[in-house]
Amino acid sequence: MTSSIHDSSVRGFASDNYSGVHPEVLAALAAANGGHQVSYGEDEYTAELGRVIASHFGDTATIFPVFNGTGANVTALQSLLPRWGAVICANSAHINVDENGAPERVGGMKLLSVPTPDGKLTPELIDLEAWGWGDEHRAQPLAVSLTQSTELGTLYTLEELRAITEHSHLLGMRVHMDGARLSNAAAALGVGLGEMTTGTGIDILSLGGTKNGIMFGEGIVTLTDGPADSMKYLRKMNMQLASKMRFISAQLLALYGTDLWLTSAAHANAMAARLSTAVQATDGVELVYPTESNGVFASLPNAVADALRERFRFYDWDRAAGQVRWMCSFDTTEADVDSFVAALIEELAAR
Amino acid sequence: MTSSIHDSSVRGFASDNYSGVHPEVLAALAAANGGHQVSYGEDEYTAELGRVIASHFGDTATIFPVFNGTGANVTALQSLLPRWGAVICANSAHINVDENGAPERVGGMKLLSVPTPDGKLTPELIDLEAWGWGDEHRAQPLAVSLTQSTELGTLYTLEELRAITEHSHLLGMRVHMDGARLSNAAAALGVGLGEMTTGTGIDILSLGGTKNGIMFGEGIVTLTDGPADSMKYLRKMNMQLASKMRFISAQLLALYGTDLWLTSAAHANAMAARLSTAVQATDGVELVYPTESNGVFASLPNAVADALRERFRFYDWDRAAGQVRWMCSFDTTEADVDSFVAALIEELAAR
Amino acid sequence: MTSSIHDSSVRGFASDNYSGVHPEVLAALAAANGGHQVSYGEDEYTAELGRVIASHFGDTATIFPVFNGTGANVTALQSLLPRWGAVICANSAHINVDENGAPERVGGMKLLSVPTPDGKLTPELIDLEAWGWGDEHRAQPLAVSLTQSTELGTLYTLEELRAITEHSHLLGMRVHMDGARLSNAAAALGVGLGEMTTGTGIDILSLGGTKNGIMFGEGIVTLTDGPADSMKYLRKMNMQLASKMRFISAQLLALYGTDLWLTSAAHANAMAARLSTAVQATDGVELVYPTESNGVFASLPNAVADALRERFRFYDWDRAAGQVRWMCSFDTTEADVDSFVAALIEELAAR
Amino acid sequence: MTSSIHDSSVRGFASDNYSGVHPEVLAALAAANGGHQVSYGEDEYTAELGRVIASHFGDTATIFPVFNGTGANVTALQSLLPRWGAVICANSAHINVDENGAPERVGGMKLLSVPTPDGKLTPELIDLEAWGWGDEHRAQPLAVSLTQSTELGTLYTLEELRAITEHSHLLGMRVHMDGARLSNAAAALGVGLGEMTTGTGIDILSLGGTKNGIMFGEGIVTLTDGPADSMKYLRKMNMQLASKMRFISAQLLALYGTDLWLTSAAHANAMAARLSTAVQATDGVELVYPTESNGVFASLPNAVADALRERFRFYDWDRAAGQVRWMCSFDTTEADVDSFVAALIEELAAR
Repeated sequence: MTSSIHDSSVRGFASDNYSGVHPEVLAALAAANGGHQVSYGEDEYTAELGRVIASHFGDTATIFPVFNGTGANVTALQSLLPRWGAVICANSAHINVDENGAPERVGGMKLLSVPTPDGKLTPELIDLEAWGWGDEHRAQPLAVSLTQSTELGTLYTLEELRAITEHSHLLGMRVHMDGARLSNAAAALGVGLGEMTTGTGIDILSLGGTKNGIMFGEGIVTLTDGPADSMKYLRKMNMQLASKMRFISAQLLALYGTDLWLTSAAHANAMAARLSTAVQATDGVELVYPTESNGVFASLPNAVADALRERFRFYDWDRAAGQVRWMCSFDTTEADVDSFVAALIEELAAR
Repeated sequence: MTSSIHDSSVRGFASDNYSGVHPEVLAALAAANGGHQVSYGEDEYTAELGRVIASHFGDTATIFPVFNGTGANVTALQSLLPRWGAVICANSAHINVDENGAPERVGGMKLLSVPTPDGKLTPELIDLEAWGWGDEHRAQPLAVSLTQSTELGTLYTLEELRAITEHSHLLGMRVHMDGARLSNAAAALGVGLGEMTTGTGIDILSLGGTKNGIMFGEGIVTLTDGPADSMKYLRKMNMQLASKMRFISAQLLALYGTDLWLTSAAHANAMAARLSTAVQATDGVELVYPTESNGVFASLPNAVADALRERFRFYDWDRAAGQVRWMCSFDTTEADVDSFVAALIEELAAR
Repeated sequence: MTSSIHDSSVRGFASDNYSGVHPEVLAALAAANGGHQVSYGEDEYTAELGRVIASHFGDTATIFPVFNGTGANVTALQSLLPRWGAVICANSAHINVDENGAPERVGGMKLLSVPTPDGKLTPELIDLEAWGWGDEHRAQPLAVSLTQSTELGTLYTLEELRAITEHSHLLGMRVHMDGARLSNAAAALGVGLGEMTTGTGIDILSLGGTKNGIMFGEGIVTLTDGPADSMKYLRKMNMQLASKMRFISAQLLALYGTDLWLTSAAHANAMAARLSTAVQATDGVELVYPTESNGVFASLPNAVADALRERFRFYDWDRAAGQVRWMCSFDTTEADVDSFVAALIEELAAR
Repeated sequence: MTSSIHDSSVRGFASDNYSGVHPEVLAALAAANGGHQVSYGEDEYTAELGRVIASHFGDTATIFPVFNGTGANVTALQSLLPRWGAVICANSAHINVDENGAPERVGGMKLLSVPTPDGKLTPELIDLEAWGWGDEHRAQPLAVSLTQSTELGTLYTLEELRAITEHSHLLGMRVHMDGARLSNAAAALGVGLGEMTTGTGIDILSLGGTKNGIMFGEGIVTLTDGPADSMKYLRKMNMQLASKMRFISAQLLALYGTDLWLTSAAHANAMAARLSTAVQATDGVELVYPTESNGVFASLPNAVADALRERFRFYDWDRAAGQVRWMCSFDTTEADVDSFVAALIEELAAR
């Protein structure tokens, strides 16, 4: 059963997790194989990963590899909160809309979500829910969670991040960053991973991997001291402790121990920009949000979207509003974009 | 970062999750790569895995790939229980001693554990906790969980399994099998996977993979209809839904779509038997449990164990009782066993 | 320690749970005392309460007395939901803002809250969150919770309730009513308790008691068959099963086995109406919501509110907006209202 | 509905929560009525209760009134534990057998229960589960819970309590006492409430009320500083915060602000001793445990128990072993005991 049973020439714009694995990541998995390594994280790859992470995020940074983004987010947030804590986030946050209530059900936390125009929190938006400390009737807002790049493809500038962390810290709240697409943000902003996180006062990070060309695995990166003490227990009880952890760590090493994180993310961003430029030049389709990372959000008639979808996979974003999402990945090619744009123009013309 | 940083010639007897990945599994991962596949389980590898699983376990069997054994166990048990349910298990069950309370904390269930002489439940042992239905003060015993092969390396015969499922079903309880080492049991008993599970009336199965030579991934296999309806939601909310699921499914296909599950498990068992035979022939060390699958449990002086551990990794099982556990894996060689036995004899002689 | 240590002549407008107990309720507690009664609900008072509840709500109605409103709400909602369920409610719902996340933390549910102009859901507002069934990434919206009378003192008409239950049922969602102030609603609308609940298609009810002159105790009333089966277990595991339940049941009997529920609620409503009329006749203070039950919501300068509060207890509702809440109770007198209005006018004049 | 509907002359030996309320408690409830008092614990009765509790338990003691014993136990234990904590307790502990898994489901904790001969833990028994700190696979044992007097009617001496707290504290575990029948223990041992708790190093206490003649209400008493900080939030989120708290506090004041706790408990104990003496003098029935507080545990033929139960309510304790439990209460009379003994002798003779 080692032969392919799928057509590996097919690519679409559905999600950056439809794509497979970068060849260097596969090679890293093979290199990490063989012999015995201590399980549950006491292996040499995880140790080396720790050093690489410190080189990015600073000496106080510690990484705890986990299986997936939801696991990273819930566990990271739990580490910031007492049992009565609440988390302020955007309505559109992945933790709020795409995790089937895992933050509430597994994490035992309440989410205090606020509407945003573009998926981005601001101090003013945070203040809509940042109140009521000391009142035991209210779930206590003690953490803020933001996503960089956001679920809507937009970006926080470093100044915006600093404004949020300073405001939150003054109010006694710590700040979590869901960095499932952190690399895309760093590539787009032209800044380092640590500069965008440790450097802006973020307390804890969900460091993405899967959406940038690895097979599985994300990291919880504690940037300040406190949360790290509890993390190993939380990770285990949340069922996110991998036994053969060397194979997560080896992948994250392949990504973050070289420039692969950057080149892959920059490429995905460039493909999205190429697509966005074409969209803006095409009648009958409009950008919904500015294209700042690797996702293009557009409005076009549902009928056109449906016809186009017969040829390329992608998702409706908001069917009622006639909005779709087109994601680019490390393996999206210029030809993919150009074919897609050509098909889009054909389907628009056919209506 | 694609070169090895570990010594791949070192192997020990610590755990079957210290070993790496079978070459056929690595090849399967490479074959599954490339192109885009629908994420979250709608890919072709997961579809094919479904057919393979049905060929083993019967047409009503459905597999839900997850990340790890704890995730499989907790999610499987949740699917059998209302919110007020309890699970009868052996004191030594992995769910009771090695999952940091995930069944209770994430699954919201109560475990009713009973002492056993050898890690195996019996109808009589189950009856110690099988009572109190209808009394709302008591967590309602509505499921039984057993492990095959057990955490102590022992095996249930098919007759013993049938006796447990019949007894449990009569009492209104469903039966979960933790099959992290199911292949080792089937190989040892010389029976098919379905014969040992579906055939004995098991309701739901945690199907192991990681401990038999894959990189990561286990499967929840529902053998009766009910639990499957809720499984997709439970898996997601329990943070066990892999986005690039094709890579779990491809590994499980490599294992269960060929005889690899059997040959690897049989090999590990044979290595344990070789070690067990040597132990029984050696003065100063005694078997604690019969060696029925791929683990050898022995008693020897702690000082000898410590000296031996300087040369080969393994774990104390019960330090106070002077008991150790030696696990064999798909990649354990005869030479490994022989070297280990030689070292054991040397260290015993040195005392 | 049986003498009063408080000044029993002081009353304010802070909350209907600042008031004490109606004399008939105290008498009922005394009458229920003496001798032994089976604990945990197998007593004669609870049996009689069951008959009284059926007379109000119909023969399929079953009451499960609990300690408090939060316990009633969380337990009732849990009975409607699988583990992956979500509840659509108004942003202003008590379950969303005043229960410190108990629905999420204890009940394991996700709340999907929507903004409303007046604390009332409508089919259109429900539709904002009523979508995504079958998608395991989304917490499944399977229940709607509304409050009658609402936390803002407003009322649903029977037509409005029917529109919500019909719409929700069509979508596969069941409807919970938080009836902490159900009596005030029935009195205001001039309808029966059953007419407003069973009659409009409500599935399950939190039946208030404490806010209408009893000492402690609320009831979960299942109006359709399903939830009752699970209720006794949920109530116990949620720590809401009273051992000496006769004393909750006797109080609820005193309230609902006579007209006391109606006369007390009607009186509280009348006092609120008296206050509301005066407010509307007074310059410098404005109603924020129509006064439809026993609460008056008004806007006035914070400085006036603070001065007035030196003389009568009440709460700010929204300090930033300069809004206050004045609640009337079964024991509020006309003189209380008139004194309060006089003080209000004085303080307004002093600015 | 203020007349009695039960026969207040009937008493049995089923449970101390079958009895009603002491007249002084009823009087206290009446005295606390009238006027408005701040809800949720800011009332004058709760303040006074705080002073009374400090007089018993010392200046660092703080009481948090709650609804019931399960609520007190779960909330108290939660305050001692991080999310990954476990509690060592006796197999027979109420938290383990009579709370439908609320400690696990609501509290998120794992119970590590040990068999005991008499319901009492010892340092040696605690050591059976007191291990594995730092190993994230094991739920971390960070608290010990003992019951005084125990569920089997036995008592810890002060020396035994000190041995447990010293041992536990040395191991980094804090100690909770389930004092649902604390008064019975203090009365039997002839010691003060504080001497038995604060004085022996107990960290947190569930202070009983309901089983000693009040209507409803227990107290969580924090005896050391830490837990008090989190308690108000835990109490609220666990749905144990009473709105009209004055009525719990007034009852606890009636009990603990006078000698009523002592006289009622001593009386119940004396009635149990009277019954126990008679049992010991009677052929065909044997004590199972020494009668040290207000419960008598006896073995007699099931047929005799069943016949006797036709005349007086009581519970089987262990039907398979032919054991019953007879509880005495504040309102048990000497005549009750004597009639019961006479009936017992008759039924024994009839076999």
